[in-house]
Amino acid sequence: MLHMVYHYYKGRFSQSEIDVVTEIPFRIMVDGVELATMMCTPVKLRELALGFLAFERIIESMDDVVSVEVDEDESDAYVQLKKPLKIIERRIFTSGCGGGVTFHLDYHDYPPVRTERTLDPKTVPSLIQDLHDAAVLYHQSRGIHTAALSDGEKLIAVAEDVGRHNALDKLRGETLERGIDTRDHILISTGRISSDMLRKAARMNTPFVISRTSPTSLSIYVAKRLGITLIGYVRRDKFNVYSHPENLASRMEAVVERAWNSVSST
Amino acid sequence: MLHMVYHYYKGRFSQSEIDVVTEIPFRIMVDGVELATMMCTPVKLRELALGFLAFERIIESMDDVVSVEVDEDESDAYVQLKKPLKIIERRIFTSGCGGGVTFHLDYHDYPPVRTERTLDPKTVPSLIQDLHDAAVLYHQSRGIHTAALSDGEKLIAVAEDVGRHNALDKLRGETLERGIDTRDHILISTGRISSDMLRKAARMNTPFVISRTSPTSLSIYVAKRLGITLIGYVRRDKFNVYSHPENLASRMEAVVERAWNSVSST
Repeated sequence: MLHMVYHYYKGRFSQSEIDVVTEIPFRIMVDGVELATMMCTPVKLRELALGFLAFERIIESMDDVVSVEVDEDESDAYVQLKKPLKIIERRIFTSGCGGGVTFHLDYHDYPPVRTERTLDPKTVPSLIQDLHDAAVLYHQSRGIHTAALSDGEKLIAVAEDVGRHNALDKLRGETLERGIDTRDHILISTGRISSDMLRKAARMNTPFVISRTSPTSLSIYVAKRLGITLIGYVRRDKFNVYSHPENLASRMEAVVERAWNSVSST
Repeated sequence: MLHMVYHYYKGRFSQSEIDVVTEIPFRIMVDGVELATMMCTPVKLRELALGFLAFERIIESMDDVVSVEVDEDESDAYVQLKKPLKIIERRIFTSGCGGGVTFHLDYHDYPPVRTERTLDPKTVPSLIQDLHDAAVLYHQSRGIHTAALSDGEKLIAVAEDVGRHNALDKLRGETLERGIDTRDHILISTGRISSDMLRKAARMNTPFVISRTSPTSLSIYVAKRLGITLIGYVRRDKFNVYSHPENLASRMEAVVERAWNSVSST
């Protein structure tokens, strides 16, 4: 999915359209019952439904399946089984990369995050560097994600976990316990930015989300809708801005205007 | 957590102890009810429980919490709330990086994966290269994971998703539909190797799991227990073997023996 983004490089901004990975909610209905809804990339949805059922031991082979219909528009799968759906023993179990289980899918419940704060673009790469330096477990063993809260100058809290969602949850828990008001702060993560991360940012009222890696289409949509400045692909002297660049610096709008005009006129 | 691994470098093996990220199942009990069990890194467990509850809108602030006790040995959190636990509207929702929700936590149900097959170590980096070449969506937009099934020479099926778990599910679904017997095959992923991936490999009877990135402590434990050869950190001319190196090549055992002796004697 193509998105217009702002590229920052050595103090200057330019703009272009780039491809980002598409993320949608996909619902698996089995014999008329909603079994699971998962965020995914809308390719091979039929295979995703079947594989999920197989790994959950709901089916053993295609012999257990009467039919699978995928409604691409609604992004639902309707599965009919030969035998009645087995009873599920344990309700929830999040896993691995952070799993990220939630009981809600409620982007529309959130009011936009409003802020008077602006962020100096020059500080963005250094915040990612600070995050890297603060990652104790990462330097021991790799294979770990780090999340941090910053006031724009330094890191206030840092959490690590094998899962990027867990790292964010730990960060949230710590700010609650320490009584830190997260409003107007900056959320930083080593992990890819999917819609969940934006949901969590909205919940924390953080108007900036920064990651070393890429966002999904849905996270850009949610960021735009919620007034969050989404920054990704941060390197030593460059990064991409996916939404609300106007919060990036006091003179950002003028800079973008010029960049946009120069792109348009060529 | 320290683990003894075999390092492959340009056709030769050596052995050393390296640190891998610890992964445990962590159960959050609220007012005596099991709310969720998640795989995580055992650091800041109290914060993880509180942050999870906050993001799920079960608590708004610490004022809603009577007490939080973390039993580090059992890796359980016991939370007491002031008001009764709100009713959960939607049962399950997996998210973002692949979520990975499951109803089972059942490593002990699986019989060991047995194989007569051996894998030539020289082919390991080229399989990862094949995976990279096959990643269509990745090359468009980044921010995506790829999973593949190989017979040791070529890739038989490939799937991509924003979530590494979803990519594996799609791969499983495709092999079911195409009637491919996954037994004796090789599972390859771009994502980090957490215990879920080993659970899925066992379910597919694939005796080899290969990833460009690192495994967790629990995935190594499960791999050892289930007879799966776990390979990670694959680069152009090197990789690490975390379990069952004896399946790697016909003469692997002798090679390892020599490497081990040479390490021991220095």
